[in-house]
Amino acid sequence: MDALVARKNKRAFNQLRRLRVTYNIFDFADGSLLFECGRTKIMCAVTLQNGVTQFMRGEKSEWITAEYAMLPAATRPRTVRDAHGPRANQRNIEISRLIGRALRAVCDLSALGDYTITVDCDVLQADAGTRTASISAASVALTLAQAVWLKKGIITKPILKEKIAAVSIGYMQDTLILDPDYSEDSVMDADVNFILTESKELIEVQGGAERNQFSWKALQGMYDLACQGVEEIFTFFERTEKADF
Amino acid sequence: MDALVARKNKRAFNQLRRLRVTYNIFDFADGSLLFECGRTKIMCAVTLQNGVTQFMRGEKSEWITAEYAMLPAATRPRTVRDAHGPRANQRNIEISRLIGRALRAVCDLSALGDYTITVDCDVLQADAGTRTASISAASVALTLAQAVWLKKGIITKPILKEKIAAVSIGYMQDTLILDPDYSEDSVMDADVNFILTESKELIEVQGGAERNQFSWKALQGMYDLACQGVEEIFTFFERTEKADF
Amino acid sequence: MDALVARKNKRAFNQLRRLRVTYNIFDFADGSLLFECGRTKIMCAVTLQNGVTQFMRGEKSEWITAEYAMLPAATRPRTVRDAHGPRANQRNIEISRLIGRALRAVCDLSALGDYTITVDCDVLQADAGTRTASISAASVALTLAQAVWLKKGIITKPILKEKIAAVSIGYMQDTLILDPDYSEDSVMDADVNFILTESKELIEVQGGAERNQFSWKALQGMYDLACQGVEEIFTFFERTEKADF
Amino acid sequence: MDALVARKNKRAFNQLRRLRVTYNIFDFADGSLLFECGRTKIMCAVTLQNGVTQFMRGEKSEWITAEYAMLPAATRPRTVRDAHGPRANQRNIEISRLIGRALRAVCDLSALGDYTITVDCDVLQADAGTRTASISAASVALTLAQAVWLKKGIITKPILKEKIAAVSIGYMQDTLILDPDYSEDSVMDADVNFILTESKELIEVQGGAERNQFSWKALQGMYDLACQGVEEIFTFFERTEKADF
Amino acid sequence: MDALVARKNKRAFNQLRRLRVTYNIFDFADGSLLFECGRTKIMCAVTLQNGVTQFMRGEKSEWITAEYAMLPAATRPRTVRDAHGPRANQRNIEISRLIGRALRAVCDLSALGDYTITVDCDVLQADAGTRTASISAASVALTLAQAVWLKKGIITKPILKEKIAAVSIGYMQDTLILDPDYSEDSVMDADVNFILTESKELIEVQGGAERNQFSWKALQGMYDLACQGVEEIFTFFERTEKADF
Amino acid sequence: MDALVARKNKRAFNQLRRLRVTYNIFDFADGSLLFECGRTKIMCAVTLQNGVTQFMRGEKSEWITAEYAMLPAATRPRTVRDAHGPRANQRNIEISRLIGRALRAVCDLSALGDYTITVDCDVLQADAGTRTASISAASVALTLAQAVWLKKGIITKPILKEKIAAVSIGYMQDTLILDPDYSEDSVMDADVNFILTESKELIEVQGGAERNQFSWKALQGMYDLACQGVEEIFTFFERTEKADF
Repeated sequence: MDALVARKNKRAFNQLRRLRVTYNIFDFADGSLLFECGRTKIMCAVTLQNGVTQFMRGEKSEWITAEYAMLPAATRPRTVRDAHGPRANQRNIEISRLIGRALRAVCDLSALGDYTITVDCDVLQADAGTRTASISAASVALTLAQAVWLKKGIITKPILKEKIAAVSIGYMQDTLILDPDYSEDSVMDADVNFILTESKELIEVQGGAERNQFSWKALQGMYDLACQGVEEIFTFFERTEKADF
Repeated sequence: MDALVARKNKRAFNQLRRLRVTYNIFDFADGSLLFECGRTKIMCAVTLQNGVTQFMRGEKSEWITAEYAMLPAATRPRTVRDAHGPRANQRNIEISRLIGRALRAVCDLSALGDYTITVDCDVLQADAGTRTASISAASVALTLAQAVWLKKGIITKPILKEKIAAVSIGYMQDTLILDPDYSEDSVMDADVNFILTESKELIEVQGGAERNQFSWKALQGMYDLACQGVEEIFTFFERTEKADF
Repeated sequence: MDALVARKNKRAFNQLRRLRVTYNIFDFADGSLLFECGRTKIMCAVTLQNGVTQFMRGEKSEWITAEYAMLPAATRPRTVRDAHGPRANQRNIEISRLIGRALRAVCDLSALGDYTITVDCDVLQADAGTRTASISAASVALTLAQAVWLKKGIITKPILKEKIAAVSIGYMQDTLILDPDYSEDSVMDADVNFILTESKELIEVQGGAERNQFSWKALQGMYDLACQGVEEIFTFFERTEKADF
Repeated sequence: MDALVARKNKRAFNQLRRLRVTYNIFDFADGSLLFECGRTKIMCAVTLQNGVTQFMRGEKSEWITAEYAMLPAATRPRTVRDAHGPRANQRNIEISRLIGRALRAVCDLSALGDYTITVDCDVLQADAGTRTASISAASVALTLAQAVWLKKGIITKPILKEKIAAVSIGYMQDTLILDPDYSEDSVMDADVNFILTESKELIEVQGGAERNQFSWKALQGMYDLACQGVEEIFTFFERTEKADF
Repeated sequence: MDALVARKNKRAFNQLRRLRVTYNIFDFADGSLLFECGRTKIMCAVTLQNGVTQFMRGEKSEWITAEYAMLPAATRPRTVRDAHGPRANQRNIEISRLIGRALRAVCDLSALGDYTITVDCDVLQADAGTRTASISAASVALTLAQAVWLKKGIITKPILKEKIAAVSIGYMQDTLILDPDYSEDSVMDADVNFILTESKELIEVQGGAERNQFSWKALQGMYDLACQGVEEIFTFFERTEKADF
Repeated sequence: MDALVARKNKRAFNQLRRLRVTYNIFDFADGSLLFECGRTKIMCAVTLQNGVTQFMRGEKSEWITAEYAMLPAATRPRTVRDAHGPRANQRNIEISRLIGRALRAVCDLSALGDYTITVDCDVLQADAGTRTASISAASVALTLAQAVWLKKGIITKPILKEKIAAVSIGYMQDTLILDPDYSEDSVMDADVNFILTESKELIEVQGGAERNQFSWKALQGMYDLACQGVEEIFTFFERTEKADF
């Protein structure tokens, strides 16, 4: 499979958009950052609540949950706020569940007491790839928060078993591209999100045909490209975290 | 990778649960069936509504949408109805979106006028695999409805470009099993749903680590097993449809 | 008052539609059945929940409640789901309250501990008479569940003091008909639902003028016809329950 | 059947509570009144809205609808407002539907243009019998509004075909009482509401066993008593309307 | 600044509309009244609830809260009920918060046990000034309720530290008017509500430019006029309370 | 009235917190900025929607509306999102209404076609003064958007008649302080928000006693201090806008 000969924005087919990060953007969160992947911008904040904070959850006490939402001006045209529409945005719910599931797969909460960890991913600007950027950001924000909790003695051992990062791969007419932006994403045949560990094992794979089905061989090519992408993201965060502290 | 030496219910690792189908269970739907996969039972109905039936959708007029829900007594303990809880069940929303997306990928609605096709998947009984059973059932119900619409002249050519079927594959300690039931599913390390065409191309792959990450090689094994599973489902429906008409 | 000389469907004025029943359709309920009265089909399931399961009820602990709803494809055109509309369906609420009230009138819950009994009546297909069919079905499902609870020692004496059955009587131009279907019901002057015990005493009478008022003498005729109808229903269930076990 | 020898409040078994009325309590309604039946007090207002005012009704244009609600301080303890609870009060919905149905049975709206008539019944104080008092009041308020609309030329002929009034009859241990107050109502075996025309024909009968079933003969006694009650209410309003204008 | 030479309703610029009051309109409230200011009519009721009565409040136990709402027929055209619209009326929420805040500023609840005081202000008729009339009425209703609670020993010392009254001042083209009615209010440049104590100290000032900004000097003039207005209201209630008891 | 001798954070009584601004933080909005006032941080975005975008508004077509909300991590403890609570946050509604009202008072929309202008104020971090900071930011964001619309020919003349800015003044024991932060605000006797034009005329004044009433003389002192505060804000934005372009 060949690359798109010319991505209109001059990126190579296997090139991520420019990454940027600003750490600790919320004074009141235990871990937070603004993660930018091209024009896609995610604010991620990790906080801790005592006991059962969610309405009528009735589940066991230690828990980690994620909430994904868009600021109204994150899109053109403006997105209607959840609280002003007739009910919660269904896409937000699906993505919130995906983020929460991915984090639960790599967390060992047994040493956490009667707390709920909430990971808020708020999209400041959406140019495709918001769900994968949210997951990459969440993993880092959780690492930051974990350091705070260890220091304060709220936990006595790390809860994050594996770091994760995620990328989206687009597929069109036998061509694959890493990390499509909205203009690219909207013409893809298929679009698959990979959530991977540092050793490239799978935490979640989720995606499908937007227009046309795709072969197993195509999925294999997507996986290989995703491995490159997450590698770069892991490296980026390692480098910036060192620089930041 | 080896099979589970002994599935407690005596099924082989690559054996589907017993399939059954009852066609046309709703007199008022254009296509409907009760699809049973072991103790999992799905009622699927396809109906046609004029124009924009969903509240404030504001989208283009021809559309296909899916709604997945559970009857309260489908589970033990009983499931609270959506309309009686504080807000719509988030799992139902995620699965409804998955079903709708899969169907849209294989439908060409350009010849459908200003109609909305609604595919209702109501779980009569849940013993794992309800989302994949819903998708397999939906594909068949849509075929039945399509025949009715062609006959009535509502459409002049088929809208379903490809038949699809779906299965879930469980993975635990290097062992794969096809179509886990609830007792099996609840102890899996990972669980992946495959939605495939008759030629085994991918419409959607969705799933992830419940407890532990898994390798690409494992996913490959899952895909191979899924191909076997959907093959059997396609054959089952072909055989029963013939018998039925 | 004379009968309709010729009901278009050849039924006599005092003839019920064909009754059918399938017991124990839900593996996870303590009592359940599919009750068909002509094309009207009700799935009824009785389950037991610990303690106060309803949101903010604040009432005494032992309780029996009913929930009536329609599957979307039960009607033509398709019915919008409660959870997808702006608020709960008002007709469903009224009928749920009627069923619950009728059951509470014939239950002695004093020997039931801190449990809520929920009776779910889900309309698989609606061709008029769904509320009365739900009540007849609920009485039987409760009897089945009661047998299970007695066996398991959850209760030590029956809770159902009286069996009940219900029928609808239509009235048009001085003519009465038992158990009208939708095509008949939609042209009636009045329509009264009778919920009766085996000794034909009244549990609830509810109904009224759809188009024109009616005399006390007409109501008397309706009661007489209702007595015949419920007699037949009681007999039907006795016979089938015997056959089933 | 004998009367209660001594109603604690000295009323005879067939005696209504003291009736009072204040006409035209709302300057902005076309017909309104405060109707008091003992300590039960209902404010009823009839207004006209252009076109389809209800959210997503999608029904034919001329329509009459009723809304019944309680002021928070109408009861002890205080009733939570609908808008402040998680969803609309179910009892209010049931009663609103009853009032609307009764009014529709006696209205001919064919001469009304594209208007919705709304009848608001707000309970200022609740001491049992609020639904029957609401119906009696609604019939009168509608008569008042009709006079206004005729005068303004909004309608060219009356829309109310029959006046109606309603009373509740309580039944306990073979004893009947007319118009029970809350202290009486709460100990009844059964309680039936009768909505009758001036000629004592039935518009709706609705009620049932609160504790024990009752015989047809008992219902007959209730009807006779209800006829007395509504007679008195019709007379009361005729007398006061004359006095008022 | 000069007065409006001729208010169309012949009131002087500094003249309140005619005040009327009916005490104790709710038998089930501890303090209540109907307060009329011209055609604006407010029913105010004060009740006491045990413990935390509001849904998920999670605040300290003793509390005073207010709820403001309109009866549907209070306005022309009719106001849609909160429970029948897609969400609570935003204006009602704003005014409820204002009333609650004003009362909390003058209450010392330290001697109140685990109770919530609820002040319901229901607008029977709206002709402008409903929020200020509600506050004046609430202060009096609370005084009445306080007397009851002292007598019953629910509290051992008064909770109301200061009586308050409120008026609205309209401003148009350098002219001020006290207590504008709707026809006046709707043409004002600005409109300010003053909530004052008997010594004319400020509890809350709230208001602003409807059409054009206004100077500090204008606000000063409004305050002076407001002092006259509340003086008259305090006097009115003193006089009528004496007359009433 | 004297200043607080020593504000714990070393600010003078009449000193604003440090102001910062970042313009154009949203690529998809017509005007936007991040406005920081000490630790209080507001993201403000102005967008234009065609026609009636709000659900069932039914008002005249040109309109300007504001929506104020908090990001969950803006506070400690974390704020529950609107869409996850039982209904919209009442404080957010009150503040959204205040911002919208203030903007409408200084806008002339007559030259705007069938558009809705939406001003989103999202609190990134809350340390008191979020509503006044939102208003100051909104005025600037609207100016930026207006320049874009003029350039694009969407409007042919400015719609903003006056620039506005807002500050909060705290009052405690005869001492006034400008722009209190949360630690100061939470111990105030009273707290008043002033929304002023460049010529110091009033657009809205809103505030009241948190603990104790206050005199007219105190309000006068607050106004004087507010004039200083908004002067400084107007100067700050003029300077930074020049620097930015």
